[in-house]
Amino acid sequence: MNESDFLAALRALPLHESARELRDDSALLTPTGPLVLTTDTLVEGVHYLATDPAEDVAWKLVAVNLSDLAAKGAVPVGVMLNYPLGGDDDWDRRFLDGLGEVLARFACPLIGGDTVSLPAGSVRILTLTAIGEDAAAPPRSGARAGDSLWVAGTIGDAGAGLAIAQGAFGPTSLLTAYRRPMPLLAEGRLLAPIAHAMMDVSDGLLLDVARMAAASGLAVSIDLAAIPLSADYRAYAGEDRAARLAAATAGDDYALLFATSAEQLPVPATRIGSFAEGGGITLHDGTASVPLPSRLGFEHAP
Amino acid sequence: MNESDFLAALRALPLHESARELRDDSALLTPTGPLVLTTDTLVEGVHYLATDPAEDVAWKLVAVNLSDLAAKGAVPVGVMLNYPLGGDDDWDRRFLDGLGEVLARFACPLIGGDTVSLPAGSVRILTLTAIGEDAAAPPRSGARAGDSLWVAGTIGDAGAGLAIAQGAFGPTSLLTAYRRPMPLLAEGRLLAPIAHAMMDVSDGLLLDVARMAAASGLAVSIDLAAIPLSADYRAYAGEDRAARLAAATAGDDYALLFATSAEQLPVPATRIGSFAEGGGITLHDGTASVPLPSRLGFEHAP
Repeated sequence: MNESDFLAALRALPLHESARELRDDSALLTPTGPLVLTTDTLVEGVHYLATDPAEDVAWKLVAVNLSDLAAKGAVPVGVMLNYPLGGDDDWDRRFLDGLGEVLARFACPLIGGDTVSLPAGSVRILTLTAIGEDAAAPPRSGARAGDSLWVAGTIGDAGAGLAIAQGAFGPTSLLTAYRRPMPLLAEGRLLAPIAHAMMDVSDGLLLDVARMAAASGLAVSIDLAAIPLSADYRAYAGEDRAARLAAATAGDDYALLFATSAEQLPVPATRIGSFAEGGGITLHDGTASVPLPSRLGFEHAP
Repeated sequence: MNESDFLAALRALPLHESARELRDDSALLTPTGPLVLTTDTLVEGVHYLATDPAEDVAWKLVAVNLSDLAAKGAVPVGVMLNYPLGGDDDWDRRFLDGLGEVLARFACPLIGGDTVSLPAGSVRILTLTAIGEDAAAPPRSGARAGDSLWVAGTIGDAGAGLAIAQGAFGPTSLLTAYRRPMPLLAEGRLLAPIAHAMMDVSDGLLLDVARMAAASGLAVSIDLAAIPLSADYRAYAGEDRAARLAAATAGDDYALLFATSAEQLPVPATRIGSFAEGGGITLHDGTASVPLPSRLGFEHAP
């Protein structure tokens, strides 16, 4: 598939009017207010498996970016795609199918992008930039001493799904959680106005909690027993301490993690800990103290 | 260099206030009017040589994106960087040096981005997204029958510079044109209000002219003898028809190509042709018709 065939296929997808039908080098966007800008790159063999279906890679590329918009309570305006044509027409076509599906699912048009050709044998590196608007935009750094720490969504499903994609036996729902994460856009919209701090869980719950606490200049304490596990995860891995630690250090959850003093929340969420003056992260399991695992998550995941 | 070292180094560069000190997954930008959005990806071995200095690769990555802003007459607001850490600390540090230099040179702060790690042996793929504002934003497709076709800047210098980078003998100025192109931001600001169509010349003059004519639904005629060549290019390659065809089909010029009916221009530029009803591109050299070369430029260059 050459560049002009690929562009012709992109033009059949939902396009933002600012895209000028992808016939220019630039898009011209007229914002109605502040914008949220985020970009994530996925690397074959690092952020997804070379054996993952191309449709799912497209889904994931869009979803991980929209998840960052969700964490700011933003409504997606559109996305820009940087795509490497690698000489595999079938992969390119299936990627386009998945891209059309995910853009339609989240009502998010294409604004622009760039297409390049890769030398033979290169790993694919895919970049997407997402633009959102109308955001309350709680920062990562806004947690306050006394706030509770909450999670919307469940933890560990995608980590189990990765093991299943690599050959473990388990339910399709977990594989889908890994390959087709759902950005919690509606939840983010409702939570952003009451969250002092919010971010998505992408690199592992413990690592992302540690980042929020460090950015906020606070200590945080997490109750391992409270971490929300799906019924499928519990059926797959159990719910003992090892299963909970595995869930809390796996990546790709795309749940929302937030700090608030509110007691009544507008969407279902689980209180998993609290912030206090000081620094560092401590774990307990009900009443028993639990040593921190040596690895809290993935330092280089999206 | 790990991700947190790299981020710390980025924080020492000029940052946009919307970047929130690069401590969040998203930037929050408050635009004052319409925005121009553009993104370009550079691939090692495709858009630059593996032997090109890392400082120059950083310069080029920013410059090619700012050149797209120049073609819309926009003022740069900032850029987002997607950077692959490849395990070569020296390269990373030199890239950061060049990035700091080019951002300072064009008063263009960093807004955000993403850092990933690459599997060993991967080619580098670098993406930058540039945001501009206050643009007259002439489209590529707006040329009118009767308009003259103009070029601001010179053609062919970077193509000669590429040959020099690969071992040919020639002046440093041409090598610099290849490695450190200058986006014509000031020229673009002044030309955009009077240009019916404008784009930068990135993939080869003839190819880019053909694209403007096709987008505008017009025929275009180019006088090869009129194409502006620098004194250094003429000293290096001569100015006979072969030298002119080589210049007109080489890439990476980052000159501005525009269509206008104006006779008085606000910046120095060279009239190289004209648009008429119909379609296709024709070449002449003074009064003699010249057959089109089989290759008009680089289909996959930035």
